Amino acid sequence: MGKNNILNDPVSGFIRISNDLILELIDHPYFQRLRRIKQLGLTDLVFPGATHTRFQHTLGAFQLMNESIEILKSKGVKITDKEDFAVKVAILLHDIGHGPFSHTFENTLIKDVLHEEISLVLMKELNKHFKGKLDLAIKIFQDKYERKFFHQLISSQLDVDRLDYLRRDSFYSGVSEGIVGSERIIRMMNVVEDNLVIEKKGIYSIENFLRARSFMYWQVYLHKTVIGAEKLLVKIFERAIELAKQGIELNLNSNIEFFITNEVKVSDFKNQQILNNFISLDDADILLSIKRWVSHDDKILSVLSRNFLERKLFKVEISINPFNKNRVNEIKEILMKDFEIEEKLTNYFVFTDFIQNLMYDFSGSNISVMIDNDNVVDISEASSGINLSAMSKINQRYYLCYPKNIKVK
Amino acid sequence: MGKNNILNDPVSGFIRISNDLILELIDHPYFQRLRRIKQLGLTDLVFPGATHTRFQHTLGAFQLMNESIEILKSKGVKITDKEDFAVKVAILLHDIGHGPFSHTFENTLIKDVLHEEISLVLMKELNKHFKGKLDLAIKIFQDKYERKFFHQLISSQLDVDRLDYLRRDSFYSGVSEGIVGSERIIRMMNVVEDNLVIEKKGIYSIENFLRARSFMYWQVYLHKTVIGAEKLLVKIFERAIELAKQGIELNLNSNIEFFITNEVKVSDFKNQQILNNFISLDDADILLSIKRWVSHDDKILSVLSRNFLERKLFKVEISINPFNKNRVNEIKEILMKDFEIEEKLTNYFVFTDFIQNLMYDFSGSNISVMIDNDNVVDISEASSGINLSAMSKINQRYYLCYPKNIKVK
Amino acid sequence: MGKNNILNDPVSGFIRISNDLILELIDHPYFQRLRRIKQLGLTDLVFPGATHTRFQHTLGAFQLMNESIEILKSKGVKITDKEDFAVKVAILLHDIGHGPFSHTFENTLIKDVLHEEISLVLMKELNKHFKGKLDLAIKIFQDKYERKFFHQLISSQLDVDRLDYLRRDSFYSGVSEGIVGSERIIRMMNVVEDNLVIEKKGIYSIENFLRARSFMYWQVYLHKTVIGAEKLLVKIFERAIELAKQGIELNLNSNIEFFITNEVKVSDFKNQQILNNFISLDDADILLSIKRWVSHDDKILSVLSRNFLERKLFKVEISINPFNKNRVNEIKEILMKDFEIEEKLTNYFVFTDFIQNLMYDFSGSNISVMIDNDNVVDISEASSGINLSAMSKINQRYYLCYPKNIKVK
Amino acid sequence: MGKNNILNDPVSGFIRISNDLILELIDHPYFQRLRRIKQLGLTDLVFPGATHTRFQHTLGAFQLMNESIEILKSKGVKITDKEDFAVKVAILLHDIGHGPFSHTFENTLIKDVLHEEISLVLMKELNKHFKGKLDLAIKIFQDKYERKFFHQLISSQLDVDRLDYLRRDSFYSGVSEGIVGSERIIRMMNVVEDNLVIEKKGIYSIENFLRARSFMYWQVYLHKTVIGAEKLLVKIFERAIELAKQGIELNLNSNIEFFITNEVKVSDFKNQQILNNFISLDDADILLSIKRWVSHDDKILSVLSRNFLERKLFKVEISINPFNKNRVNEIKEILMKDFEIEEKLTNYFVFTDFIQNLMYDFSGSNISVMIDNDNVVDISEASSGINLSAMSKINQRYYLCYPKNIKVK
Repeated sequence: MGKNNILNDPVSGFIRISNDLILELIDHPYFQRLRRIKQLGLTDLVFPGATHTRFQHTLGAFQLMNESIEILKSKGVKITDKEDFAVKVAILLHDIGHGPFSHTFENTLIKDVLHEEISLVLMKELNKHFKGKLDLAIKIFQDKYERKFFHQLISSQLDVDRLDYLRRDSFYSGVSEGIVGSERIIRMMNVVEDNLVIEKKGIYSIENFLRARSFMYWQVYLHKTVIGAEKLLVKIFERAIELAKQGIELNLNSNIEFFITNEVKVSDFKNQQILNNFISLDDADILLSIKRWVSHDDKILSVLSRNFLERKLFKVEISINPFNKNRVNEIKEILMKDFEIEEKLTNYFVFTDFIQNLMYDFSGSNISVMIDNDNVVDISEASSGINLSAMSKINQRYYLCYPKNIKVK
Repeated sequence: MGKNNILNDPVSGFIRISNDLILELIDHPYFQRLRRIKQLGLTDLVFPGATHTRFQHTLGAFQLMNESIEILKSKGVKITDKEDFAVKVAILLHDIGHGPFSHTFENTLIKDVLHEEISLVLMKELNKHFKGKLDLAIKIFQDKYERKFFHQLISSQLDVDRLDYLRRDSFYSGVSEGIVGSERIIRMMNVVEDNLVIEKKGIYSIENFLRARSFMYWQVYLHKTVIGAEKLLVKIFERAIELAKQGIELNLNSNIEFFITNEVKVSDFKNQQILNNFISLDDADILLSIKRWVSHDDKILSVLSRNFLERKLFKVEISINPFNKNRVNEIKEILMKDFEIEEKLTNYFVFTDFIQNLMYDFSGSNISVMIDNDNVVDISEASSGINLSAMSKINQRYYLCYPKNIKVK
Repeated sequence: MGKNNILNDPVSGFIRISNDLILELIDHPYFQRLRRIKQLGLTDLVFPGATHTRFQHTLGAFQLMNESIEILKSKGVKITDKEDFAVKVAILLHDIGHGPFSHTFENTLIKDVLHEEISLVLMKELNKHFKGKLDLAIKIFQDKYERKFFHQLISSQLDVDRLDYLRRDSFYSGVSEGIVGSERIIRMMNVVEDNLVIEKKGIYSIENFLRARSFMYWQVYLHKTVIGAEKLLVKIFERAIELAKQGIELNLNSNIEFFITNEVKVSDFKNQQILNNFISLDDADILLSIKRWVSHDDKILSVLSRNFLERKLFKVEISINPFNKNRVNEIKEILMKDFEIEEKLTNYFVFTDFIQNLMYDFSGSNISVMIDNDNVVDISEASSGINLSAMSKINQRYYLCYPKNIKVK
Repeated sequence: MGKNNILNDPVSGFIRISNDLILELIDHPYFQRLRRIKQLGLTDLVFPGATHTRFQHTLGAFQLMNESIEILKSKGVKITDKEDFAVKVAILLHDIGHGPFSHTFENTLIKDVLHEEISLVLMKELNKHFKGKLDLAIKIFQDKYERKFFHQLISSQLDVDRLDYLRRDSFYSGVSEGIVGSERIIRMMNVVEDNLVIEKKGIYSIENFLRARSFMYWQVYLHKTVIGAEKLLVKIFERAIELAKQGIELNLNSNIEFFITNEVKVSDFKNQQILNNFISLDDADILLSIKRWVSHDDKILSVLSRNFLERKLFKVEISINPFNKNRVNEIKEILMKDFEIEEKLTNYFVFTDFIQNLMYDFSGSNISVMIDNDNVVDISEASSGINLSAMSKINQRYYLCYPKNIKVK
């Protein structure tokens, strides 16, 4: 960007950035790194257009935040310049803790660490550099600021983060049904007692938003071939971790090796070297590791890696009910016979688990609708078009993965 | 079109028409007349972009029919050249019986006559002209052909008619949330025992389609300002009919006069003169009548007409419950006092009724889902994402109309 | 619109109108009338999607004006609230003098009167109503205000009028090649010594804009079938005027009759009755006249009118050179023989003339490019990619019209 | 893709692939590798949406080829099944020889080897695997087949390759002005004496295509910040090559090292090992090399690499005239003083050269326009709207690069 402060984006149109400090944040290596991390991980193996990055999404969410703040001000909501700046910084940095393929690697490479926690560590680092100017942004991000709607704009069931990623993922995957009327919803936003609410006539737009989200989950995010790709990636790294434990050389030349050979926890990020290691990672490190491992001596690692590179992904079956153990064992036996591998190693190729998608969460933060000036209710009460209790039930599905090239009945 | 057989449409892209008889049908005055009838009647008073015509929609549905037939053939469904031609003619003529603002005028200008019945009369007329070549098309239109899926493509809960009008109305109104993945749905179509079914992986698309339809109903088709406009148009013509009954001259110079002064029934269309009268009508006749009536001696007629032209539409209140009679009467009394009109005339200005929108109809033709090769079930059983029984309940709303310029508490 | 001050438009997105006086202007019958006048006249006979109205275009240009003013202010151009209001009013009213099919009827119905002149008359009328509040708007419209860039934004070779109509006509006709980067161009606008200029890096966008305009001219505005339709409309009204001169009854019931039977000049619009007559006209008056004339006793009038309604438009040939007189006479003779009409009447069916399209006008107002802070030159000097002198030459074409159904060699 | 033979693409819509051999080709590792190579190299550093891959473009071009063949057949052009298959294979493989950032690296990593030559080597390899089934495809690709139009569809001034990449690059960069009416142009294609021609009415579309291409060159492909990024990448690898020559260890762990340390020629690709090395490369290898070099002992290499990663790209000046040598030397002297580096090393930071864009090439293959059935002329003769001789002149610009963080007058 440099001195250019207008960006041209196919989803957001022209994004103007006029604040100098925000420009500096965008130019910072922590933020530039998001250019090298795809928003949807391996989804482009199924929807080839979905190669957009976390960098783009973050700027798109930033743009929607600008619009939201402008709309709220025009409705008489008082927002100081300091708050205005802070909430824009907060949205800009909300995803800064994402590593490469982070959703796939949850509980694999970095255990029990949410990306929000890493974001917070990085924000604090940046705050040192910018001499405390990010104090309020961090407070809003942590939901410690008394005017709750600022945090709700960043993280709630109807935040600008979701408003951007749904429209963007829909656009890039070519799945037009996932389109949400982000602009219409923003125009319906208001604030009552420092809480974000939606005006009554926005109910249909909210219902549509919840529906679009559900559609994107089943059609794109949890598409069974996407799962087949993600699980293959996980198995590759589980094998690498296992080999590292056994002291076997992995032949890498990347900081990713540190995270394979050590169990990193969030507290470790206080160590500057570990933090720098993490910051240096992007999608290319993962990809190049796999390319190296194609010729690794360990057959499991090399076969899985070759399958990944040549897009021989797992075959995936989906079911509402758990898969029968006998069936899983039968497939493992076929595998043992066909590929001549030990039983314990079959877990790298044949396994079952579940995925879930909660469409509307009654328990957590909710979407509030302003019926009239004095009356705010939950969307589930205000809505009459769609049965939200049906939406809120957990949609759980079981999956079973196994190699494509074995004959299974 | 003439010899040009490619049309450029912003929604459908390029529409190629290569069959000579179909070109002749499109060039016929019955069909060309659809150019002068807007698809959404008065909706452009609220969504100014929605000026598209029945002509465009019909060609768009024709294009989707071409795609559907191609997809079904590619899946091994046997379709003869005769059937292919007939079903395309049938979709082309399915809306040919629409008059100007026909949804608004149902039960006003032409009583108890469905536009489908007039379409049938016109198809039979055309069939005479084309010497019986439309026989099978008419049979399909009437659902008298044994291979049911042809009729289902034209008229069912998931026909190409709806697939086109939803995407088109959404496009022209600028309400992006109404977009349905017409192409995706068509790709999921199949035929089992001569019935149209949707393949299993199309469930989410169907749910999305039902949701989009619901959204368009509440946000566009039944928008309260649209209702306020439509009811004003109805009241103008009710008044004109009343005056005609009283023998008062209407000062028109249009065939519309015939339909105001006579109670026309579907059987009357056998009379060639009446048929020709009907065929000559389009949106301009309605509009010019109202412009004439602005200076009519009858005050009711002239006030209503002026309000229409200057877009002083009825104020509309919507409620889930019926409106209290006392309230309606109070408004009428204010009106009587303010405007010095007799009580019986207040019905032209103050009135209440209900509208409804049935999202999914369990009783009628249903949407069938092919679970596997031998197993076809209703979408309501196959779906798990959205509660269809909630969708199928009748969504009924009451409305109350009264003039904008009276003070109502 | 009433109290709703947000409009949803498929091209402009959400248009917010917050000024009360501007809302009143939009609600005024003069302005609401633009809803009933199509922007592109008969073009929808060739591009069926092009049914958009002057109402939509005007609001779209208004929206672009809002953006332009905001951009200029952000670049430090001083604009007072009074100027801000005035220039927005001026763009809103710039097309208010358009009658139905006005481009087609130039020199037919209303002789030697430019629509800009009628706009001015109507603006002055409105100014009386609004007690002088439109003074500055009118001054800007007339180019009598010393800060020239305000007028240039409304009317110059690169005004928001053109920036809207090109993108809009392109969108509705489905001709994607006519898209201009309106937003990009607006972002390149600046003001030097009170004149509108384009910043240097905008040169490619300007070249693209000139090219898109040329494309739309030849592909849409001057499409030969569109010409065939427009000339048919002109011939119908020329015949009606001729009959009126002969004292023959035209059987209309519309104010259009006044303009057929009288030669109206711009000075006549001072007469309030004539003004009101004009204001009452819209597309429906033209269409209904033609529908009446289908059964007129005069064969010429009835044949031309029927051809129009049934879309039997003139066959049109285009040539870079004038058509040979002998050829025209030969066609007339065929016509006289086939249709048994007198020679002098053949001019209603066979005629030739020319059309022209000036891509860039060196003589008039030009597009200025700001090379650097002190240096402003004409686009023709600044541009290097495209030869503008080639663009500026008059592109003149000759056309020859005759009925489709006669055999011509 | 696996057994799924429908792909969803945001630009092309649904792409259906029904031929088994074509599916096998797409599944082949040579082709899957294109998923990991961005179409526009470093352009996403300026237009962040432009992250689309060569994989997507190739499938889009394949889709346009399907449409072209269908249109030509519908116009009576005889095309055998064998030719149909061959030309589709040829377009699918036309870009298969592209390496990572190949336009940037021309003349750096692989000297004097065009990507078309590598494509041919790879096609021949695949032909062995597929037992000669690609014979005709290769013949067409090499322009050795007597029916020239097949090759012209793949490679000429108006081939489906350009028709796809222009619309796709325009879409992803968000630069709407680059849109070409690919579908319209394809509909205008025809074949005369086995040569591809455009029908007369397509002239405006061709002019528009040439204009859009020019626009994309100056606005996107040759955007000065893109040049600043590409030249930085080149300088990094020039430095690495220089260090390799000096025997200095580069600390990589990637096959890219082979191409840095050896001067590879096209004849070397006969060596299977070198071919495999090449095939293993993608964007990640380049990126990871640079990440490694940030901590390399050589200051030049580490500084350039860090600048790249943190997006401190070269400052670029553009001029129509060559830059004055004195000015270049002055900047070098400032650099020597500020950064304390030797004179000969300043060439890594300060340098000048030229770029060019030939809009329409008179000398090579031309675009033929079919005036009528017997008459085919070059577009430059047929066109009257735009001066093509102006377009055909070489548009040459000089650029000067230097670091952003030095003070230059």
